[in-house]
Amino acid sequence: MPKRKPRVEVCFTPRSYELYNEDVDIVVCIDVLRATSAMCAAFEGGVKKMIPVATLEEALEFKKQGYIVAAERKGQIVDGFTLGNSPLSYVDGKYKGETIVITTTNGTMAIHTARKAETVVIGSLLNLDALSEWLIKQNRNVLLLGSGWKETFCLEDTICAGAFVDNLLSSGKFRSDFDSSIAAKYLFRSASENIQGYLKASSHRRRLRDLNLNEDIKYCLTPNQTKVIPIKKGKYLVKM
Amino acid sequence: MPKRKPRVEVCFTPRSYELYNEDVDIVVCIDVLRATSAMCAAFEGGVKKMIPVATLEEALEFKKQGYIVAAERKGQIVDGFTLGNSPLSYVDGKYKGETIVITTTNGTMAIHTARKAETVVIGSLLNLDALSEWLIKQNRNVLLLGSGWKETFCLEDTICAGAFVDNLLSSGKFRSDFDSSIAAKYLFRSASENIQGYLKASSHRRRLRDLNLNEDIKYCLTPNQTKVIPIKKGKYLVKM
Repeated sequence: MPKRKPRVEVCFTPRSYELYNEDVDIVVCIDVLRATSAMCAAFEGGVKKMIPVATLEEALEFKKQGYIVAAERKGQIVDGFTLGNSPLSYVDGKYKGETIVITTTNGTMAIHTARKAETVVIGSLLNLDALSEWLIKQNRNVLLLGSGWKETFCLEDTICAGAFVDNLLSSGKFRSDFDSSIAAKYLFRSASENIQGYLKASSHRRRLRDLNLNEDIKYCLTPNQTKVIPIKKGKYLVKM
Repeated sequence: MPKRKPRVEVCFTPRSYELYNEDVDIVVCIDVLRATSAMCAAFEGGVKKMIPVATLEEALEFKKQGYIVAAERKGQIVDGFTLGNSPLSYVDGKYKGETIVITTTNGTMAIHTARKAETVVIGSLLNLDALSEWLIKQNRNVLLLGSGWKETFCLEDTICAGAFVDNLLSSGKFRSDFDSSIAAKYLFRSASENIQGYLKASSHRRRLRDLNLNEDIKYCLTPNQTKVIPIKKGKYLVKM
């Protein structure tokens, strides 16, 4: 009997991870607005390493040791830290060659949740096609893990996950078993012509608009601006 | 300041209920394939009361006391019980005036999860417009609670929930804050022209098709076949 195709599946939030992670080889962590977009932008901008941490306490420890620390909560830079999670902080190459510690409301939690997976990579719309190509070559089971908003479902991560599902299924080399994967693909397909318009009603979008982050949003929702694939090696994220 | 509109929201599975149930007045439990469809069909067929129970143990206790018991697991009637969760069992009026105890893989779990809510009603595509009309008249916060499949997201419950969201938002008397509600509405809108075709790829549909339940599926996916609204009163479901 021929070996079955590997699976590409979607888990909407870290809270449900244990229901979806059976036989998963590669976890793609996604937080479109804005943590994983910022990570892709950081490596594109020449950052050497990132250290994702789940809590502000850990972030403070690193700060005391002299690290540059990016810390975001509720969409804003936490008082006393250098950076938040705006991808635009990195595009001018200001942090080239540096190591950046990063903690965010939702995105670093997804990375923490996936910590026991064999391989953890960072996905966003920014590196959609480059990461899809790499995933297709691996021929392994892939789980796209959305960050959600405080554990609840969020639309932009799901649409991004659906874009990856669409790419991988279109290669003919993958299958999807879960309804979440099918729904994500459907949602991406309805959104793909105009992702920004589609997301206008989304809760997170509204939240960030209130904080005057329209430039950030536009950047994060524009696919394929980089070919970098951040990958987790021990406690570090590095460029593959 | 005028009072804000009441909310209509969607929670995909019982597992996430506590994240979505704040300030909720009415919970609509949904298990399209097939528990809540069967409940609507049962009352349409003249059943007087139903007693939903979460476990087979409880169902057995009722059986010993002489009750008619419907028990489904893995899509099939459990050995030793009279009925499963096929809505077609009820359409000929065979159980008119009877009280039926019912336990199913997913649907009765949603009802159990919502047990502390002020008001619990039973929704399906079968009573879509009748229940929507009633909900619109109540002017209270509504949560549509999908049953999912063994705690994971399922497409048919989400599409049904999205149909309710679409009806309630279209009335102009409700608002939605969560992305899950927006996504459900989007999914319903893409599916609405051809729900059966849209669900062909869904995991649950495949599962039931393998069990030769195509007639059941067709029945459950055909909207507005009844005006009954089952409502929970104490341990019973009764016709409103």
